[in-house]
Amino acid sequence: MAQDLELLGEHACFGGVQRFYRHASAEIGLAMRFSVYLPPAAREPGAKLPALFYLAGLTCTEETFPMKAGAQRMAAELGLVLIAPDTSPRGAGVPGEADSWDFGVGAGFYLDATQAPWSLHWRMESYVTRELVELVRHALPVDTQRIGLFGHSMGGHGALTLALRHPGLFRTVSALAPICAPTRCPWGEKAFTGYLGTDRHVWRDHDASELMARQPRPPYPGGILIDQGEADKFLAEQLHPHLFEAACAQAGQPLTLHRHPGYDHGYYFIQSFMAEHLAHHAAGLGAGA
Amino acid sequence: MAQDLELLGEHACFGGVQRFYRHASAEIGLAMRFSVYLPPAAREPGAKLPALFYLAGLTCTEETFPMKAGAQRMAAELGLVLIAPDTSPRGAGVPGEADSWDFGVGAGFYLDATQAPWSLHWRMESYVTRELVELVRHALPVDTQRIGLFGHSMGGHGALTLALRHPGLFRTVSALAPICAPTRCPWGEKAFTGYLGTDRHVWRDHDASELMARQPRPPYPGGILIDQGEADKFLAEQLHPHLFEAACAQAGQPLTLHRHPGYDHGYYFIQSFMAEHLAHHAAGLGAGA
Repeated sequence: MAQDLELLGEHACFGGVQRFYRHASAEIGLAMRFSVYLPPAAREPGAKLPALFYLAGLTCTEETFPMKAGAQRMAAELGLVLIAPDTSPRGAGVPGEADSWDFGVGAGFYLDATQAPWSLHWRMESYVTRELVELVRHALPVDTQRIGLFGHSMGGHGALTLALRHPGLFRTVSALAPICAPTRCPWGEKAFTGYLGTDRHVWRDHDASELMARQPRPPYPGGILIDQGEADKFLAEQLHPHLFEAACAQAGQPLTLHRHPGYDHGYYFIQSFMAEHLAHHAAGLGAGA
Repeated sequence: MAQDLELLGEHACFGGVQRFYRHASAEIGLAMRFSVYLPPAAREPGAKLPALFYLAGLTCTEETFPMKAGAQRMAAELGLVLIAPDTSPRGAGVPGEADSWDFGVGAGFYLDATQAPWSLHWRMESYVTRELVELVRHALPVDTQRIGLFGHSMGGHGALTLALRHPGLFRTVSALAPICAPTRCPWGEKAFTGYLGTDRHVWRDHDASELMARQPRPPYPGGILIDQGEADKFLAEQLHPHLFEAACAQAGQPLTLHRHPGYDHGYYFIQSFMAEHLAHHAAGLGAGA
């Protein structure tokens, strides 16, 4: 499998390397790109390091996180691998796929679409949880028994839902300004209608707050971390962290939800709290010990 | 003067704020943009903080540094203001101004052009050293007796030459992968021919290595810091740090020139050594004490 990975770029960074890969994805049926940061510890013979997957938000690509989040410095210190996939299929040629900034290209919502014409390629859930994890296990010095998941906005929705839908796959989870209740916000309603159809019962299986509320026991007893800016212009209409907070309370799931006055939705917010997220995952994954 | 500053955007970042401004520039004769990071200490009543000006490279804007260099975290700790101007006039309407990526728009080379049609607006040296410093002194909590200058590539050329051409204005100077001898490289020859004409004698006043070699005494006795990646694809043909190194030796100027195996010309290189540069300036400017 490793031989199918095409290295598009490699940049020395904090003693490690920031890489960009392309590969033919079986799940997506198209070429997909992702970025990988390998810390200095990855060079040691036989290294198998913990890894943290990052899911980006609407309009982003696999380049957004490595370029704007400022995570490599601390990942280098902790010996953490950082992996960031693209946010949707590209080049599928579905009519209208790039007409909206919040649907289609750059807006895969980390689920497997069931509705034509999206269902053929828009399979981001299977891509991330199955294909990419497996690919990384074979091709990179990663211990897939020690992987964490986090993300921003749409990618925060992705992180919370994939972590809840695939128990045991990710050991740690956190999110920055996540879409916490997509069945109850315009972004989610638009995306779920297009990708999953109009039956709202089906949507509930892809809503972090719905998924959490039905957990019989706390799925992440080590705690979930969420940071949210209070000056985030999407907070009131799109994000609804209070609904996820209530669901965690219902499930007995420990949640640390930090609300930060003055912070908005962008990467100046994200980089400000990146160290806290890396520390959260490092503790749960046994990195930097 | 402060009332002419238009705040285009403000983002909370590491306890401070990342701002973007636009103003009508008298030197340029057009609207100019610049970015400012104000650390948390800037909120204290009567604060007058040391500041570090960053000059970016070819094709960059005032957004490149705040978005990609990862400097705010440490600036917040040190109490350093960070200021990054755009790299050229925009919207001048000079025929062909955007035809080249290394001349015209995005390529001001931090000098005052003497040749028509560029001489009307391309006055980046006066803009930075006179207008922007003065503007910052009036409009922001900056102590202009404690300002430093650094930059990357074309902006490294700008940092070294402006620091040498304006003694006493900047207290500290450093550069990342600077163009060290523009009179002897294709980028510099093209830019200087266009902006300054064909008389190569005139060019020498804008060449860091030439300027340093003629110093009667070390202009920066506290030392100049340069970082250079050895895998930088522009190193051999365009940058010539060895010529600046020789000039410093001739002038008795202390120079710390770090050559880093494996590092290239981009912002993954820059962010890797940002902390070292901020520490260099903080020491010279008495920041973080």
